Amino acid sequence: MTISSFHPTPRTLMGPGPSDVSPRVLQALGRPTIGHLDPEFVGMMDEVKSLLQYAFQTKNEFTIAVSAPGSAGMETCFVNLVEPQDKVIVCVNGVFGMRMVENVERLGATAVVINDKWGHPVSVDKVTQALQDHPDAKFLAFVHAETSTGALSDAKTLCALAQEHDALTIVDAVTSLGGVELRVDEWGIDAIYSGSQKCLSCVPGISPVSFSPRAIEKLSQRDGKVPSWFLDQTLVMSYWSGQGKRSYHHTAPVNSLYALHESLVMLQEEGLENAWARHQAQHEKLKAGLTQMGIEFIVDAAHRLPQLNTVVIPEGADDAAIRGTLLNDYNLEIGAGLGALAGKAWRIGLMGYAARNESVALCLAALKSALGK
Amino acid sequence: MTISSFHPTPRTLMGPGPSDVSPRVLQALGRPTIGHLDPEFVGMMDEVKSLLQYAFQTKNEFTIAVSAPGSAGMETCFVNLVEPQDKVIVCVNGVFGMRMVENVERLGATAVVINDKWGHPVSVDKVTQALQDHPDAKFLAFVHAETSTGALSDAKTLCALAQEHDALTIVDAVTSLGGVELRVDEWGIDAIYSGSQKCLSCVPGISPVSFSPRAIEKLSQRDGKVPSWFLDQTLVMSYWSGQGKRSYHHTAPVNSLYALHESLVMLQEEGLENAWARHQAQHEKLKAGLTQMGIEFIVDAAHRLPQLNTVVIPEGADDAAIRGTLLNDYNLEIGAGLGALAGKAWRIGLMGYAARNESVALCLAALKSALGK
Repeated sequence: MTISSFHPTPRTLMGPGPSDVSPRVLQALGRPTIGHLDPEFVGMMDEVKSLLQYAFQTKNEFTIAVSAPGSAGMETCFVNLVEPQDKVIVCVNGVFGMRMVENVERLGATAVVINDKWGHPVSVDKVTQALQDHPDAKFLAFVHAETSTGALSDAKTLCALAQEHDALTIVDAVTSLGGVELRVDEWGIDAIYSGSQKCLSCVPGISPVSFSPRAIEKLSQRDGKVPSWFLDQTLVMSYWSGQGKRSYHHTAPVNSLYALHESLVMLQEEGLENAWARHQAQHEKLKAGLTQMGIEFIVDAAHRLPQLNTVVIPEGADDAAIRGTLLNDYNLEIGAGLGALAGKAWRIGLMGYAARNESVALCLAALKSALGK
Repeated sequence: MTISSFHPTPRTLMGPGPSDVSPRVLQALGRPTIGHLDPEFVGMMDEVKSLLQYAFQTKNEFTIAVSAPGSAGMETCFVNLVEPQDKVIVCVNGVFGMRMVENVERLGATAVVINDKWGHPVSVDKVTQALQDHPDAKFLAFVHAETSTGALSDAKTLCALAQEHDALTIVDAVTSLGGVELRVDEWGIDAIYSGSQKCLSCVPGISPVSFSPRAIEKLSQRDGKVPSWFLDQTLVMSYWSGQGKRSYHHTAPVNSLYALHESLVMLQEEGLENAWARHQAQHEKLKAGLTQMGIEFIVDAAHRLPQLNTVVIPEGADDAAIRGTLLNDYNLEIGAGLGALAGKAWRIGLMGYAARNESVALCLAALKSALGK
């Protein structure tokens, strides 16, 4: 068997991610590979760090990009900070909260799980109670923007509560970064991770991470080594550090970092607040069109993510067949439901480069036709 | 501060990796991103699997690409297969053997370390003795091609020894895959990992991995869950599996996999044996030129990697200054010494796309001029 070069059919990506990647980012991605210790590359890494500090709204010195997808960013936070003797309050209102529980348990630590209904935000009351019931909890972990349901939780309030109880916060910002308001320093987030392939509209495979000085202190006071060598940030720091000589830890994903750099340059050009406003404005347009078709949202208006619209599959519509029509006839990808919402919901992403007039117009027109409305 | 788009100066990469990336691979990398569950993408993944089976010379059903660099490939093998109660014989003759020891110890397992001098291959005699002394050893782990020294070890003989003692083998093939003879099935390797950025000449960030049926059996008989969620191959399998529906584990690095696919298509076009022969032929040319300049190799001719030439820095030559001249005046990168060889050796890579007449000619001419020969 002889296998030929692969030429993907261009698609419009309006699922839960990867999102549409801008041509500028693809161009940057394809630039010539240089060495991971080349002075030019090291200079670019310093810029990536500054740009990520802007995107996260933080002055955290430890702000880097993990050389692997968002799930590795999640694991980076847990494996470095959480020790077997620690208790972690974990809020679960979708798939990614469940994954946090997996992370805690695999480390041999104790997870106190707070459940909320899928499609609902994390309950501030339940977290208040849990922090009172577990004064020994070292961490509060929650998902800011649940990619599996489209619900936005009140990160600012949750972090303030954790601080009152002297618990560190671990926040999943995979789908929120660049799409909705997020202020790491002002809100007092201690460890945060995101993904390249959502509202930054970069290619998948990279995970921005930032640790507060309090988190770094916890890391430096560990009893033993971090269980994972690859994700050990005490080692990674000496590669990303701005001071002195960079020491080799692993070979950085050079070209993917070119792409992340370009996507962050674009975010800086647009302005963070403008990017948040653009996602909201495009969401309003999509919502108006969907409402006209009688399509309903899973999440209450007050907690709805503009960049991830989870909607009830209309009665009589065949989930897979409709998504197949969109993909085959319109080269348009929307997302299936995940976990408890499989077969019941669609997830329509308006992330980054997909939060544009032309994408919303295409999505509405194609859905209308496929549903025979 | 406003940060602009990054435009790297094109370099010729002749260090220990990343290696020169062919324009075909960069083109593939920059193709439009599609969804990680798109039928076209899933079809491409099946092809990547077949192409990796060819490159590894294996029929192993579990042959995949880990969504992270080679060090994560290493960790994938150890974290899935080695349990805390296991004893692992680890051969150390350079940096990457030391990293294997780190992996074993961080898992809470026992490492029996066999040391050989840097620049020497793993000693078959010492391994024979260690297997006799430790009949309870579950694994033999070693580096096929030590990237830090340029030494090639006799993987075939080492694997045969391990089999006699019923130990599973974990083999680092980061620098060997595609550059020198490697036959996973014929030699009976149980777990092997490589990197995208060496002799495959793909961009860094991806790690090909293959597990034998015996390794899969060990994995399936674990006492508890794999400590890492991200690297848990019992979960990853259901995404890479050819049977039935792909289930979501994490978002695959879509574009990096386009690039890996293209690099493997090129390997298939050339033919594996021809690629091995090309690396050897270019090594002979480089060796002839270096010898004329009076430059000596660190590794004995019998154990020398053609694709990674570790040479003694000539007396009187300033390590950093010479490498700086090559980089600044010729846009040519060669590697510094690592670990015990820092300041004493240079590492000249002839990997993948860099194993060409023009690269060897440039390297020799630039070195000659920089050294004032």
